[in-house]
Amino acid sequence: MIVVMTTSHTDAERTAVFDRLKELNLQGQAITGIERSVIAVLGQVFPELRDELSTMDGVDEVLRVSKPYKLSSREVHEQDSVIGLQHGVQVGGGRPVVMAGPCSIETEEQLWESASGVQKAGAHILRGGAFKPRSSPYSFQGLGVEGLKMLAAAGSQLGMPVITELLSLRDVDACAQYSDVLQIGTRNMQNFVLLSEAGKTGKAVMLKRGMGATIEEWLLAAEYILSEGNPNVMLCERGIRTFETATRNTMDLNAIALVKRLSHLPVISDPSHGTGHWYLVQPMSLASIAVGADGLMIEVHPNPDHALSDGAQSLTPANFQQLMDGVSSLGDAVGRPVAERPQAVAQS
Amino acid sequence: MIVVMTTSHTDAERTAVFDRLKELNLQGQAITGIERSVIAVLGQVFPELRDELSTMDGVDEVLRVSKPYKLSSREVHEQDSVIGLQHGVQVGGGRPVVMAGPCSIETEEQLWESASGVQKAGAHILRGGAFKPRSSPYSFQGLGVEGLKMLAAAGSQLGMPVITELLSLRDVDACAQYSDVLQIGTRNMQNFVLLSEAGKTGKAVMLKRGMGATIEEWLLAAEYILSEGNPNVMLCERGIRTFETATRNTMDLNAIALVKRLSHLPVISDPSHGTGHWYLVQPMSLASIAVGADGLMIEVHPNPDHALSDGAQSLTPANFQQLMDGVSSLGDAVGRPVAERPQAVAQS
Amino acid sequence: MIVVMTTSHTDAERTAVFDRLKELNLQGQAITGIERSVIAVLGQVFPELRDELSTMDGVDEVLRVSKPYKLSSREVHEQDSVIGLQHGVQVGGGRPVVMAGPCSIETEEQLWESASGVQKAGAHILRGGAFKPRSSPYSFQGLGVEGLKMLAAAGSQLGMPVITELLSLRDVDACAQYSDVLQIGTRNMQNFVLLSEAGKTGKAVMLKRGMGATIEEWLLAAEYILSEGNPNVMLCERGIRTFETATRNTMDLNAIALVKRLSHLPVISDPSHGTGHWYLVQPMSLASIAVGADGLMIEVHPNPDHALSDGAQSLTPANFQQLMDGVSSLGDAVGRPVAERPQAVAQS
Amino acid sequence: MIVVMTTSHTDAERTAVFDRLKELNLQGQAITGIERSVIAVLGQVFPELRDELSTMDGVDEVLRVSKPYKLSSREVHEQDSVIGLQHGVQVGGGRPVVMAGPCSIETEEQLWESASGVQKAGAHILRGGAFKPRSSPYSFQGLGVEGLKMLAAAGSQLGMPVITELLSLRDVDACAQYSDVLQIGTRNMQNFVLLSEAGKTGKAVMLKRGMGATIEEWLLAAEYILSEGNPNVMLCERGIRTFETATRNTMDLNAIALVKRLSHLPVISDPSHGTGHWYLVQPMSLASIAVGADGLMIEVHPNPDHALSDGAQSLTPANFQQLMDGVSSLGDAVGRPVAERPQAVAQS
Repeated sequence: MIVVMTTSHTDAERTAVFDRLKELNLQGQAITGIERSVIAVLGQVFPELRDELSTMDGVDEVLRVSKPYKLSSREVHEQDSVIGLQHGVQVGGGRPVVMAGPCSIETEEQLWESASGVQKAGAHILRGGAFKPRSSPYSFQGLGVEGLKMLAAAGSQLGMPVITELLSLRDVDACAQYSDVLQIGTRNMQNFVLLSEAGKTGKAVMLKRGMGATIEEWLLAAEYILSEGNPNVMLCERGIRTFETATRNTMDLNAIALVKRLSHLPVISDPSHGTGHWYLVQPMSLASIAVGADGLMIEVHPNPDHALSDGAQSLTPANFQQLMDGVSSLGDAVGRPVAERPQAVAQS
Repeated sequence: MIVVMTTSHTDAERTAVFDRLKELNLQGQAITGIERSVIAVLGQVFPELRDELSTMDGVDEVLRVSKPYKLSSREVHEQDSVIGLQHGVQVGGGRPVVMAGPCSIETEEQLWESASGVQKAGAHILRGGAFKPRSSPYSFQGLGVEGLKMLAAAGSQLGMPVITELLSLRDVDACAQYSDVLQIGTRNMQNFVLLSEAGKTGKAVMLKRGMGATIEEWLLAAEYILSEGNPNVMLCERGIRTFETATRNTMDLNAIALVKRLSHLPVISDPSHGTGHWYLVQPMSLASIAVGADGLMIEVHPNPDHALSDGAQSLTPANFQQLMDGVSSLGDAVGRPVAERPQAVAQS
Repeated sequence: MIVVMTTSHTDAERTAVFDRLKELNLQGQAITGIERSVIAVLGQVFPELRDELSTMDGVDEVLRVSKPYKLSSREVHEQDSVIGLQHGVQVGGGRPVVMAGPCSIETEEQLWESASGVQKAGAHILRGGAFKPRSSPYSFQGLGVEGLKMLAAAGSQLGMPVITELLSLRDVDACAQYSDVLQIGTRNMQNFVLLSEAGKTGKAVMLKRGMGATIEEWLLAAEYILSEGNPNVMLCERGIRTFETATRNTMDLNAIALVKRLSHLPVISDPSHGTGHWYLVQPMSLASIAVGADGLMIEVHPNPDHALSDGAQSLTPANFQQLMDGVSSLGDAVGRPVAERPQAVAQS
Repeated sequence: MIVVMTTSHTDAERTAVFDRLKELNLQGQAITGIERSVIAVLGQVFPELRDELSTMDGVDEVLRVSKPYKLSSREVHEQDSVIGLQHGVQVGGGRPVVMAGPCSIETEEQLWESASGVQKAGAHILRGGAFKPRSSPYSFQGLGVEGLKMLAAAGSQLGMPVITELLSLRDVDACAQYSDVLQIGTRNMQNFVLLSEAGKTGKAVMLKRGMGATIEEWLLAAEYILSEGNPNVMLCERGIRTFETATRNTMDLNAIALVKRLSHLPVISDPSHGTGHWYLVQPMSLASIAVGADGLMIEVHPNPDHALSDGAQSLTPANFQQLMDGVSSLGDAVGRPVAERPQAVAQS
């Protein structure tokens, strides 16, 4: 850490900083010849120190020189992490995977129509929401455990691992029982207790970026899962909130490219939520693979204009087939061909 | 709802909209003579309808004409809500209250020094965090139930109601047992299960705005609590996330003025988190009362440069005294004098 | 336009709206059976009407049903616009072009090294800044007309059209004399007088999106140029300002896909400014072409760590060659192969 | 400046940094014992250095330790600047002033009705737009020089200094001839040539914050005017662009409080544009004075629902009178009473 003093600081204020550092078993080193008076902090610093020193009289600001996240950093773990799932599906490590299915599980028919459609088109992982976070208490909230069972059954029948959103502490056991991957949604990215509990299940966890969260906060949130001893964490960019309202969110593809550099964790892209318009899903899927995403998460509904949630951003199975074709050509062109289809016999 | 058709829509697409509305027991009315072809939807609409119709061919966009929140709206409840607490403290209804105390409860001494300081200066409600949401798993996470007990004891001894953050489902009972007001933090504003459970306790709930949440989403989140039959909801503006990084957040005082118009719920302002700098807390406190806030929430620490959290934005008891003096004069000038001090004998 | 009345409006307020519309030679049509009382406005509306009606007592909000931009809209001009430049270069119409060169023109040597490097690698248009908008008055401001001449000479020698930023009214003639394309920078997107003057030159104009501008405002700004009778307008997405500071800006690729749908104008992507880090330029270039951009604008400097501006985001000629190879494969895979190289003999 | 090396940097990369510094006549000092390897840069640094060093291999980031703005900083000029205008009006120095009048000058009658109304209510400076920056080329663009003359005449007759927007280089002379204060609008905050030319006139200049501009960029823009030797610069906060769309902009009152600390320049608040709704103008005016603003700028129209621009945010003269009464009481309460009325006889 580097303490920058104000231009008008006094000797006493400067001495107080040195004294406080000594109290904390740290050491201060004054640097002279630089534009401003600064004090370098030597020793083992801790995150709160920045806040503390900031309040001292005569201190203008305190600059960090190291990253606050550790386990998710490439500095600690240089190689890409690869997460193995049932049916031979692997997330991370070069070949993109596609997760697809309905936003919400509504009925067996709707789920089956969507699930069999996406499997046929070449999806690797089946998605479906049983617990839905809805802005309004007056909206459809999902089928709950009944939905989980339907999802697990469909995945098993089609030979696909499944992913579903874990919404709350009270659903941890049920979700871990029925799902291969636990999705933490954007509104829960900083629900730290939920992150820890998800981590403890040992299941793979997909952590969506908070719509108002920085990349640094996102990686710090991943630390909550990783620090439970669970290495099976994948990240998911799903758009951030900006002033632009012509799209539901602003997909931050810069973030995908940057996180691939900062971290070894796989990064999935969710252009359905990221754009909010079905007709933008295919171009943004192609762009996501081009920029380096390890996979896609796509909402597919047999009949989007009758969907109980997120109809506007859902593809029909036919459109999804087209998307898979496009993604497949593009993956070949950029040297990261789409992953093999899941294997019929489970191998968990 | 108003369905706006594209300029190039076909008769068949138009007919399909009318047919879909009929299926849903709604009625469409074409409006002619307007710039674009539009269809007004007659009957009892539901929120998802917008999404559904948006996906239909030939539809350009679907406009809402009513607000999605109900119980929090002034249209439904015209008079200001007033929330009664122990010791005769009332939140809402014209006279501002001040909540103050340490960010985190660290030790009995630290709590007592802060609590007795703020009480002496005229604060009405004692705040203190026992469960802390920290961006990093490596930061201090709070004293838990031990902290709650210390807070309740201090409140009781000083004759002040207390408020603390409810972080997780597993702490609902403990927080409801020891605290007069349950605070839902910015990261949990859309933790809908937590909102419902907080609502069920019947305790007063203070709902902080999500740092990336719109005013509409904030009022919808309040509906989750209100719709449990709990009318004791107050809102808290604590700054939103914008491109400006010179301050920790951007306090949205527009939102306070607007919410006072849209809703009957009391609105508290939190300039400690809203600015992140102790030296901006007093001016923004004055501005908050001037704009119409029903109260303030202020972090006070006996020794901010030794705080385990949020030191940079904490006031000393002496600075807090100065703030109370300023707020008091300003409240008089704007015709909303600061509320009477709490009464020594509880009256719950 | 649709006027939504408050739930508590009076008959007199409603009548006043009808009367005001009549004054303006418009007609109001009440719609009944819808959630709220609304009045549809029949006749030829004008943009200011929304503001006017919004202020009337009893009016809650006024909704637009048509787009405010006209000439840039696909509704008016369905086919993609194609802009022809010297040396047979065409912007728009399916085959991406690449504009490259130094951020600022510094010396003849630096320009030539960059220009010949990008030409060799297959760039179509040579970029170079002679007038530089710098946040600080104490930074290098460009070589001015001397720089323009150097740019024109290099373009002529290498057989490439050139593009340069038009910063101010006083430089219109000089820029139009020496440059094939006039670039309007992000800070001038709403410098409406400059837009009109650029339009009047008849030269091709590339309009960068304001870093804080919505897509709608961007298209409206393009109207200022188009309405001078100049159809040769291309747009350029260069990143918007959001809360994320790990990258210089947040590139909005959603916007590229959406604008291609809303408008017939070509859209260029500028990942150098959009990311601010040279190591993110290649992945975001690939993503831009994948999402549908009609071209790229890339900063290339022979020696980025000695650049007088934007060194951090400049590629070396070697890195640029690699980028061109990647873009070329990707263009083939998505069915939009990179455009042919410029023809040695000018054909303007 | 402090250069932070990556954890994996090599000795050669480190040496290269030292060598590059030596080339630039600077010196590097390695600091050991800190978390990361860092190099402090000793000597006279320049802004571009940060960018340059950032691109070097092995460098992770480069931290600034001093502010890039100089003349606008309190470090250089500790006392509040006070700007003297005609009729004894002073901006800055403790007593708030109010600028008011119509958004656009439309007719003599409309201007007079607004101007005499605001004068009667106690406004100090008359505002009125003659050149209007409009998002759409199809909107009313102002009366031009004719409007300027009407404004100057009204100011003279009422004994008030006047302020008007300078939109373009071609209007510098006319605006400087007829107006006491030149307003640079939000869209031109980084129109650096215009800033310099405005500075050269020697007239007082009010610089509005760009809707997407940081505080640092705003102060740097002020440097463009100040560095022309013109000390008469006042700043104006008018709301920034955020994700919240319920208000036209988000007023950043944090910024007012912070800028008063960082800079000696007076800061005006514009709640008309900052909120976009007339009914939020009064509460946000009170809040602005409470937070420390040196003045207000308010749009007043005799008949807001017939205004040719910004009707939705304009006050009637009666509402403005009410605002002045409120501001007056509040100014007294916070120890900064509203400035005396202008003196009938000019004293320029």
